[in-house]
Amino acid sequence: MKMLRRLTLPLALLAAPAFAQTTPSPYDTVDPFIGTGGEGHTFPGAVAPFGMVQLSPDTDTTCTIRDCYDHAAGYRYDDTTIQGFSHTHFSGAGHSDLGDFLVMPVAGDTVALEPGDPKKPGTGYRQHFDHQTEIAQPGYYAVTLTDSKVRAEMTAGTRVGVHRYTFPAGQAAHLVLDLRPSLYNYPGKVLWSSIRLWPDGTITGTRQTRGWAPDRKLYFAMKFSAPLADHAFLDTEKHVAYKGFQGPGRGQDDLAEKAGRQLVARLDFGRLAQPLEVRVAISSVDEAGAMNNLTAEQGDFDAIRAKTKAAWQKALGAVEIAADAPMRTTMYTALYHSLIAPSVSSDADGRWRGPDNAVHKADFTVHSTFSLWDTFRAEHPLLTLVQPEETNTDFVKSLVASQRVSPFGILPVWQFQGRETWTMIGYHAVPVIADAYMKGIKGFDAKAALDAMVASATYGPYGDLKDYMALGYVPIDREPEAASKTVEYAFDDWTIAQMARKMGETDIADRFEKRSLNWRNSFDAETGFLRARKSDGSFRTPFDPTAINYGSDYTEGNAWQYSWFMPHDEGGLIRLLGGDDATVKKLDAMFEFDNSKLDYSHAEDIAGLIGQYIHGNEPSHHVAYIYNYAGHPWRTQERLKQIVDSQYKPTPDGLSGNDDLGQMSAWMFFTGLGFYPVAPGSNQYVIGRPFVERAVLNLPGGKHFTVRADHLSAANHYVGRVLLNGKPLAKGYVTDAQVRAGGELRFVMQATPNKAWATAPADRPYSLSGYGAE
Amino acid sequence: MKMLRRLTLPLALLAAPAFAQTTPSPYDTVDPFIGTGGEGHTFPGAVAPFGMVQLSPDTDTTCTIRDCYDHAAGYRYDDTTIQGFSHTHFSGAGHSDLGDFLVMPVAGDTVALEPGDPKKPGTGYRQHFDHQTEIAQPGYYAVTLTDSKVRAEMTAGTRVGVHRYTFPAGQAAHLVLDLRPSLYNYPGKVLWSSIRLWPDGTITGTRQTRGWAPDRKLYFAMKFSAPLADHAFLDTEKHVAYKGFQGPGRGQDDLAEKAGRQLVARLDFGRLAQPLEVRVAISSVDEAGAMNNLTAEQGDFDAIRAKTKAAWQKALGAVEIAADAPMRTTMYTALYHSLIAPSVSSDADGRWRGPDNAVHKADFTVHSTFSLWDTFRAEHPLLTLVQPEETNTDFVKSLVASQRVSPFGILPVWQFQGRETWTMIGYHAVPVIADAYMKGIKGFDAKAALDAMVASATYGPYGDLKDYMALGYVPIDREPEAASKTVEYAFDDWTIAQMARKMGETDIADRFEKRSLNWRNSFDAETGFLRARKSDGSFRTPFDPTAINYGSDYTEGNAWQYSWFMPHDEGGLIRLLGGDDATVKKLDAMFEFDNSKLDYSHAEDIAGLIGQYIHGNEPSHHVAYIYNYAGHPWRTQERLKQIVDSQYKPTPDGLSGNDDLGQMSAWMFFTGLGFYPVAPGSNQYVIGRPFVERAVLNLPGGKHFTVRADHLSAANHYVGRVLLNGKPLAKGYVTDAQVRAGGELRFVMQATPNKAWATAPADRPYSLSGYGAE
Repeated sequence: MKMLRRLTLPLALLAAPAFAQTTPSPYDTVDPFIGTGGEGHTFPGAVAPFGMVQLSPDTDTTCTIRDCYDHAAGYRYDDTTIQGFSHTHFSGAGHSDLGDFLVMPVAGDTVALEPGDPKKPGTGYRQHFDHQTEIAQPGYYAVTLTDSKVRAEMTAGTRVGVHRYTFPAGQAAHLVLDLRPSLYNYPGKVLWSSIRLWPDGTITGTRQTRGWAPDRKLYFAMKFSAPLADHAFLDTEKHVAYKGFQGPGRGQDDLAEKAGRQLVARLDFGRLAQPLEVRVAISSVDEAGAMNNLTAEQGDFDAIRAKTKAAWQKALGAVEIAADAPMRTTMYTALYHSLIAPSVSSDADGRWRGPDNAVHKADFTVHSTFSLWDTFRAEHPLLTLVQPEETNTDFVKSLVASQRVSPFGILPVWQFQGRETWTMIGYHAVPVIADAYMKGIKGFDAKAALDAMVASATYGPYGDLKDYMALGYVPIDREPEAASKTVEYAFDDWTIAQMARKMGETDIADRFEKRSLNWRNSFDAETGFLRARKSDGSFRTPFDPTAINYGSDYTEGNAWQYSWFMPHDEGGLIRLLGGDDATVKKLDAMFEFDNSKLDYSHAEDIAGLIGQYIHGNEPSHHVAYIYNYAGHPWRTQERLKQIVDSQYKPTPDGLSGNDDLGQMSAWMFFTGLGFYPVAPGSNQYVIGRPFVERAVLNLPGGKHFTVRADHLSAANHYVGRVLLNGKPLAKGYVTDAQVRAGGELRFVMQATPNKAWATAPADRPYSLSGYGAE
Repeated sequence: MKMLRRLTLPLALLAAPAFAQTTPSPYDTVDPFIGTGGEGHTFPGAVAPFGMVQLSPDTDTTCTIRDCYDHAAGYRYDDTTIQGFSHTHFSGAGHSDLGDFLVMPVAGDTVALEPGDPKKPGTGYRQHFDHQTEIAQPGYYAVTLTDSKVRAEMTAGTRVGVHRYTFPAGQAAHLVLDLRPSLYNYPGKVLWSSIRLWPDGTITGTRQTRGWAPDRKLYFAMKFSAPLADHAFLDTEKHVAYKGFQGPGRGQDDLAEKAGRQLVARLDFGRLAQPLEVRVAISSVDEAGAMNNLTAEQGDFDAIRAKTKAAWQKALGAVEIAADAPMRTTMYTALYHSLIAPSVSSDADGRWRGPDNAVHKADFTVHSTFSLWDTFRAEHPLLTLVQPEETNTDFVKSLVASQRVSPFGILPVWQFQGRETWTMIGYHAVPVIADAYMKGIKGFDAKAALDAMVASATYGPYGDLKDYMALGYVPIDREPEAASKTVEYAFDDWTIAQMARKMGETDIADRFEKRSLNWRNSFDAETGFLRARKSDGSFRTPFDPTAINYGSDYTEGNAWQYSWFMPHDEGGLIRLLGGDDATVKKLDAMFEFDNSKLDYSHAEDIAGLIGQYIHGNEPSHHVAYIYNYAGHPWRTQERLKQIVDSQYKPTPDGLSGNDDLGQMSAWMFFTGLGFYPVAPGSNQYVIGRPFVERAVLNLPGGKHFTVRADHLSAANHYVGRVLLNGKPLAKGYVTDAQVRAGGELRFVMQATPNKAWATAPADRPYSLSGYGAE
């Protein structure tokens, strides 16, 4: 079987001119297996762009809470068995949940209704698989289950997943539909569930779970290409105080409905002459919503697969890339991974579930799965360049609509399927909205959005904003992770000021611009580190810049990573540190730190270490670009090569950390093009160095922006010259307006650093309080 | 304080002519405490006629499952402490659930958030109370909490409960709102709950429980007459795997919302100059529904109390009774208890939750709380006489609407708040609908209703109807309680036939009339008892007619009680037993059975024994009237005196068994008037003997039907003559048409039996297969 993800190009092709006819299409270049091993937490299954359904194999759902981290996306490349195919997965999350509505084909006369022990083959419905039989493409996944010889294929539309199972000839076809397994499946996760057979053979059901999100409700509707010959609905829970609910037959399993907390169904189809197709729609609203979603997306397996393939071809067509094959795969897969979330959350009829757990109706497509602490950095800025304005408008509208019905009156923090998880810190929906507004994305009510942003930044009980507003910093004796919160609040505040200024709301702009300087209140110039302060004004002691602990002064990190987080005011930092040279020295100390005496095995999300630079987690993501702010752009160029070479490769273990709903990928995509949005809301992309020979961004407005890297090679890894539309570019950044206008950004690469380009204070990227070159 | 329930009339008044000016009004005569002790399971709290809210004190919710039976209505007259006031209660159920949203006032500076040990005063918010301080009237309840001196008053509208708390002067006022306690409160009962404070001070919340009904959702909205000064929302559950859901403050309790499984709230109002009023609406649909229900019923405590008092005065005005004071209290309280269920279940906006757990909308008032195995007997027939046609039409429409959305396509069995509990046996919504139709209640779609009845009687998986249809009886080797099921199905089938015949649906009528003779297939003429048969046709052995066991041949009873259950064909039974004398002998053997060697303490609902006659449970309810069918009406008269004297009294322990949502009370009410609907659907009321001197039924059609009992006294307990509209009535029954036409049924009572009246076969009540006098 042709293994797309192992497709390697002949060497000759690598040297061929860009856009050669023989170059695989963007669609064929994507490798969904990237990140399914190691720490990436991606899934290989079928999903449409921003699709509500992510239909993908689960190799293990029987984890303990700690193990769940490894199986956050259900599938791990190292595993040898598949438990089943479920309809919802996060792409690269650092937490775990979902795995809803697990389906497994069973061939033959006996049907086990328990998955069995992965270490003991044949003890349940779980089956072995072989990577040689796998195919993964955007919107399509296939595998042969070794034990039963069933060929399993998956595709997905926006709100529909379609399974196709080819059973061995002469063997009876069954499906197990198991509502018990889950990702992050500790005891008691399923609060309630139900399953119902309708007279026309449709099956609907619901599952209400308490996982990462509390009280999450998900509904499904399922239709089959063959008639259902028989069925059994079982409740395997013991110790139920009142059993009357088991239904009229008091224990019979052929009833039309079953409800309980441990449900599993056996569905029998007899011997089939054709493959069995299963169309499944989901909804966060209700079963009627799922039924309607199923009706709204017509078509059999091949039709849905073709429609989704076309959607991916269009989405991936946002850029045309020429690069060596591994980098081209890395880049297109990065783009693919950046187009999975925020997932569509509203039903085809416009209804959606809000953070108040109530159902609302919208006249736009509501999205959820907002991993905002990650995605405000590069993922959302990327989407403004590669997705239509309408889609970006819908993202903003979704955030504001959520705020409007929030019990707390604030924007989402880490939300999926409309449910708030309160994961991570800050109010980073704010920079997403501000960045979109600053870039001219219209179509949403800017006044309402600004009100929502201000409300989120002033809700006292959230993350001790009350003290932050009174003291100018979050005090560590009253709130954990106070240092991180102070600097992240300050940046978010600056983006409010940016947007308010542009809207003419001067009072709000002045107020939040002042707040945005609060990062200084937690910075200890003496040690040169961001530090947590107590409410009496003193810094907390003892202080160890390498310490990483939960509930400590920092969020998933330490002083080394967090001391650089003032993206709107790196110049102010440079001044505090004593100027360019001191800053470069400190940056180098970070990248070259000797970790041999440290142990971070107790902390999640600490992966991809280069000294104390941690590429596997987001606080470091902009740090390599800070050399540019300190007048040393060639050092940024060096660090980027170091990072890309060590942290990305086109293999299952090719992501050094959780993809975090596209942020790790978006970093690579921007960096590959040669620039990065260090401070969303600034409308500047800080120039690094390109990793592709050529890329054409087909922008949402119809313009084309081309990046060229002349003389690019492993040896020529320094930027010699930069020309914008043929004219030398002195600045160390390009503006969003320059990009959106279309044109050409030409890098001339060379083997030695150009230590003159973009070093003058006036050529450096934006900083609120000026440049630190003095 | 004036204790209404202890009000006794001067002896002189008892002998006064009926309708004397000094007789207390019907409203003032009702004693809601009747049944709150002993086995009655009624509650003393505030409820409007058929109201959705039953706001009543809970003296204990900390029962084990076995203890819960005693506290099925929350309040037990023997208890000495009150835990709080909750908004939902069954009136006389044999199972337990509800007790939703418990509120308790706390005065002073410290507020305990646990109820504490009832045996250790002061260990929690639970408080002592004294019956001397209690007042209970229809729609009003008051008590003084002894420890804090808080005066607590309750009233209720249809969907609203209003609390009024008068705190001691100078003491801070607080409320505890506890979402944890419940009736039938085993661990894990609360699947999920939430509470939310809105900017205007309204509090809303929800509780999803798994009790008697699975996955029951109830929502509330609550407004206060004084501003909320402070609040705390706490989640007391331990061992939560992912704690992020605790909200943005991660453990703070002053947030605007909290969700979890163990929630309790402290609400602080400071020192108040006025009593604190709390308006609470509930909804089975959603919080918006509860909010809207709160808006729909305007008015403060006194206004709601006055409105509900007027509603009760109107409802109780359906009859004017002259009787001695204890019997008058018994009769009006019986009428009161018969007007509590079926409770309103739809919201003010017409939305309601169905047995499919989905929300629907109706253009009529949807009722639920259908205890049909009990209430088809006399409770629903009574409601056709004392409630408007529209209300009875709504009951039928509610049943049919439920069937339409049932996952099983069948009518309710034992349903509350739209949720099916599958309690007891049979499909007794069928006789409720048939009886209403036969009595000329219109306004519902008879064809749709008949379809729903047939669907319920032919759904194979329910109670082994599949075998019943194939074999003509339910086989005990395939289904428990098979003997009871066979005879109850047969009666229900007969009512389908009655209705179908009247509609001209002859095929259906013939088919179900034939089925209705199936009772014979489980009757053993040799032993003279109903017995369970196996699928091979043999009766199960060994056979002990006194055995009562769960899962046995009978439902909450034995062969003694169940052998009489063919209300549509008692004549057929008499024939099988060998004629009138043999039947009377067997009836006497039942009433006079020596139980001294039996122990029924293991069985629920076995109370009120007179030999093997068990008045405390429904299968016996028509049995005393069977003497009439056997030509011995004076023996019926004797047994009724024996039953009424021993099973009813106007005291807390005045009901010998669970009131069962009005059935025990409806039995008393009919029997007190002198006749009883042995076979609903027959349009006949079998004459017993009156216990009141005079009663005027003010019928829904505007006519008046008067019952007179001339010469009634303790000594004159036999019926000498019966005159209908002045003419001698030879029949042992009156028809529904005769009653509804208005007029006068005059009994002339005497001290000796009249052994000639109504004994001729032609004068006996209806039997399908003729009379057994041969």
